[in-house]
Amino acid sequence: MIKLFHAPGACSMSVHVALLEAGADFEPIAVDLKNGAQHSPEYLRINPQGRVPTLVTDDGTLTEVPAILNWIAQTYPQAQLAPQGDGFALAQMQSFNLFLSSTVHIAFAHLFRPERWADGDAAKDDLGARTPVNLALNFAMIEQRLADGRAWVMGAQYSVADAYLYVFSRWLERDGAGGSANLPLTVAHRSRMQERPAVQAMLAAEGLPPL
Amino acid sequence: MIKLFHAPGACSMSVHVALLEAGADFEPIAVDLKNGAQHSPEYLRINPQGRVPTLVTDDGTLTEVPAILNWIAQTYPQAQLAPQGDGFALAQMQSFNLFLSSTVHIAFAHLFRPERWADGDAAKDDLGARTPVNLALNFAMIEQRLADGRAWVMGAQYSVADAYLYVFSRWLERDGAGGSANLPLTVAHRSRMQERPAVQAMLAAEGLPPL
Repeated sequence: MIKLFHAPGACSMSVHVALLEAGADFEPIAVDLKNGAQHSPEYLRINPQGRVPTLVTDDGTLTEVPAILNWIAQTYPQAQLAPQGDGFALAQMQSFNLFLSSTVHIAFAHLFRPERWADGDAAKDDLGARTPVNLALNFAMIEQRLADGRAWVMGAQYSVADAYLYVFSRWLERDGAGGSANLPLTVAHRSRMQERPAVQAMLAAEGLPPL
Repeated sequence: MIKLFHAPGACSMSVHVALLEAGADFEPIAVDLKNGAQHSPEYLRINPQGRVPTLVTDDGTLTEVPAILNWIAQTYPQAQLAPQGDGFALAQMQSFNLFLSSTVHIAFAHLFRPERWADGDAAKDDLGARTPVNLALNFAMIEQRLADGRAWVMGAQYSVADAYLYVFSRWLERDGAGGSANLPLTVAHRSRMQERPAVQAMLAAEGLPPL
């Protein structure tokens, strides 16, 4: 059985949602990030980077959200969580997820975890102060993508990209991130996500309120 | 015909190599990053993020290196640039490429382009000073991966992950990155890469020396 090592509210929410959408048989295992459980010898044997999520499957262990999400979509094709039979559309979905991981997540991390890249307190403050500026630019691109009236990132069809975007549309409301006041399409997408039973089940399991 | 917008020595090298390995019919178009051509209105119409690489195909435009690399591997299967018929191995390749894009490339970018995340000069210096520390941790993981004697990232079979790793094994020698003195397996991988005709052709086309 699949094991998902995750933390409530972390980017692992997207994998949690995708596994529920897929109808996968899995066990979620919470990693207590606040108490440093991700740095314990036991966890570092599972994931030497000391991050969540980690997905342990019958074939082996996977890390990195976009890779895990696409593996779920391909392993449970009946759930239709990615474009099928259209290699270019699939690459576009992956490109969007890469933008989220390499640009949007990184922008948030400069506010939440500046110690990853800076040692001094002044530098950490500088990084945090810049985050809302970068996020405004990043989410302007996301608003642009949703501007043609599409319900989901890839158009009419829901995909794992929507579950991943939901992570960051939630994080916008965390202290210092700048909020979603000027992002109506992102907020509408977040609301649509919260109508999905899999998202409601994930929120209940992780002890999080809808926004 | 495919158009590759790239810059000599940038992470677009990996896409350049992959297109050559695939035998794709493509036109490389250099973007003059030093003179800010990536911020020109013409280029921003092609890629609103103002980054390289951008791949313009008959089906549309793709950005983000791991997504482009996998699209090339899937579109030219006869070149065998990714695991075939093994979804888990393909996900592992993507996971490795994600680690390169979201962690390793980001570590380098804090040295080369700190203005992406910081405004003050002191903060920028702090980020640059930390880069060699983070890169040493990241490349220790890469050395660990290569420690079983495998020739390539995925084992016996070459893949686009090798072309992507080559970008960063080159960048190690750039000022301030910390160098490759204690990374014998990474250096050996770099040398193996430079024996490949496609890498030699890329270096000649981009005007770069082997290392």
